[in-house]
Amino acid sequence: MPENRVSTEQLVIEAVAAAKTRESVTDIYFVACGGSYALMLPNQYAVDRLGKGITGHALNAAEFKARSPARLGKSSIVILCSLSGTTPETVEAAKFARAAGALTISLTSGVGSPLDEASEHSVFYKHEPLTFKLDHAGAVLAQLTFGILAQREGSKESLEILAAVSRMPELVDKAVASHSARIREFGEARRRETVVYTMASGSNFGAAYSYSICILQEMQWMHSAAIHAGEYFHGPFEITDSDVPFLVLRSIGTTKEVDDRAITFAKRFSTKVTVLDAEELGLGVIKPEIVEYVEHLMFSAVLRNYAQRLSFTRGHPLTVRRYMWQIEY
Amino acid sequence: MPENRVSTEQLVIEAVAAAKTRESVTDIYFVACGGSYALMLPNQYAVDRLGKGITGHALNAAEFKARSPARLGKSSIVILCSLSGTTPETVEAAKFARAAGALTISLTSGVGSPLDEASEHSVFYKHEPLTFKLDHAGAVLAQLTFGILAQREGSKESLEILAAVSRMPELVDKAVASHSARIREFGEARRRETVVYTMASGSNFGAAYSYSICILQEMQWMHSAAIHAGEYFHGPFEITDSDVPFLVLRSIGTTKEVDDRAITFAKRFSTKVTVLDAEELGLGVIKPEIVEYVEHLMFSAVLRNYAQRLSFTRGHPLTVRRYMWQIEY
Repeated sequence: MPENRVSTEQLVIEAVAAAKTRESVTDIYFVACGGSYALMLPNQYAVDRLGKGITGHALNAAEFKARSPARLGKSSIVILCSLSGTTPETVEAAKFARAAGALTISLTSGVGSPLDEASEHSVFYKHEPLTFKLDHAGAVLAQLTFGILAQREGSKESLEILAAVSRMPELVDKAVASHSARIREFGEARRRETVVYTMASGSNFGAAYSYSICILQEMQWMHSAAIHAGEYFHGPFEITDSDVPFLVLRSIGTTKEVDDRAITFAKRFSTKVTVLDAEELGLGVIKPEIVEYVEHLMFSAVLRNYAQRLSFTRGHPLTVRRYMWQIEY
Repeated sequence: MPENRVSTEQLVIEAVAAAKTRESVTDIYFVACGGSYALMLPNQYAVDRLGKGITGHALNAAEFKARSPARLGKSSIVILCSLSGTTPETVEAAKFARAAGALTISLTSGVGSPLDEASEHSVFYKHEPLTFKLDHAGAVLAQLTFGILAQREGSKESLEILAAVSRMPELVDKAVASHSARIREFGEARRRETVVYTMASGSNFGAAYSYSICILQEMQWMHSAAIHAGEYFHGPFEITDSDVPFLVLRSIGTTKEVDDRAITFAKRFSTKVTVLDAEELGLGVIKPEIVEYVEHLMFSAVLRNYAQRLSFTRGHPLTVRRYMWQIEY
């Protein structure tokens, strides 16, 4: 961020203030593509869990514009995200939402980017995926979502959640350090696999989805799918076999039982189940009622370290692409 | 359905009437697991597109209960579905929703099943997936969703959509017959594959998801993931290679451009792209503004015929399971 711009914190405060002063807010649309879309999912989850007068919707940006929700209008807040600020579908979605009268708030690292220009409010974030800081996209989104819920609905949980978010940078660094041996083992054990499934539920599904589509498929050219742990027993579990790898995120929040059931089954029939456990990652220090809202921040950063190591053991750097940056599409 | 029960049509009318007489309806939750959950997605899509005072939410039944949406209550309608009516998570979800004061409407073939017993209203449907009839789950869900939108919001499109649904049995049978050569070719061409991706967007995503998790993973033990056509360019497309198979659903409705972009790219780099095109399947006879709401009914039935043939060429009947019906889990 250039020195002459106001801080990320100040930009969040301004965006939340704008949301506060809207005459009415009935819907928050979380709109983005790929990894940025994945970041939206735990926020949509949070609005479902906590929002009484406000509903949350998470949509891929192209889908959002095509779907053109009937409720989109002056009572809508549309939160968008694109690292570069140049993702065409997201820029189009911002223009579309703004023309419909919605309050548009965009997250991007691209100061002066098309997304920044198209949106009423922009908040600039830093992208350092191996760790977690309070000016990263995940934190900024939490500040917006819970800030809006606190301001408009007096949600007390939201203030507690934001306090928990502020503890995450320290907890994430500790967890990454404490898991270094496991991260190395995973890289060794999975380097010849052609398929790795991820699995999660609740507010962690987005982190699993992101790992499947952005890391395994995009950056490693490995087959993958993010399986919802509750859906696992209604189809996907039949693919389980002794040599089929699963990477499962275990919540200690409200969806713990959903995850545990899936983990127990997967471990019974596959010898290749890796569990990232929120408890083992040190999240037991967060209040049980609150932890579900911050777990994904932990998982995302720890998973990126798993990805980094896997890319080394596979000799396939995370920066390699065959289509993106290489051709027009 | 036993002879002494009232007709499916009559049960739908009663359920819609109950929805009409509720003091207020702000939210419809579509709650189920696996293939039944997949059927909910186009209905959630329709509420997003058309619902002005009503929002739509589609959730896996275990996720629904764990998530426990803040808005769930007397102004909610919860529509559930389970073929047997014994899916424990869905039964639990019905009890949970009813206790919260929501109007519960369940679809099942299980007269007297736990889901039937747990729900305020039940509508019984027939399961004949190779074809489409007006007493199948997809039709009953449409009658509920669009019936409620018509009754509560005076949605004129909803009445037109229901008229289009009633044309689908004839159109589906014609399409299946006209595609018999393609269905046979697909079975031959894909019988040795270990992975097949599906792709779709808009109201057809559920049909692709169902094919991935219920047919390929569950009934064929083949690796698969349903890729949203809009998300494809933001991660998954890097997995595309000359020998990676894709089965893509092409809408001629509002998400046509999203699908076409993905199809063009996939065909450029893979020699194994199968497109099920709503136009080629005879849906050009439906009004362009309406067709998006009925396409999934066509795709689901045609896809099941693709599955049936694939199971033959692979010598792996669709009824084979290694865990479901075999062990306790």
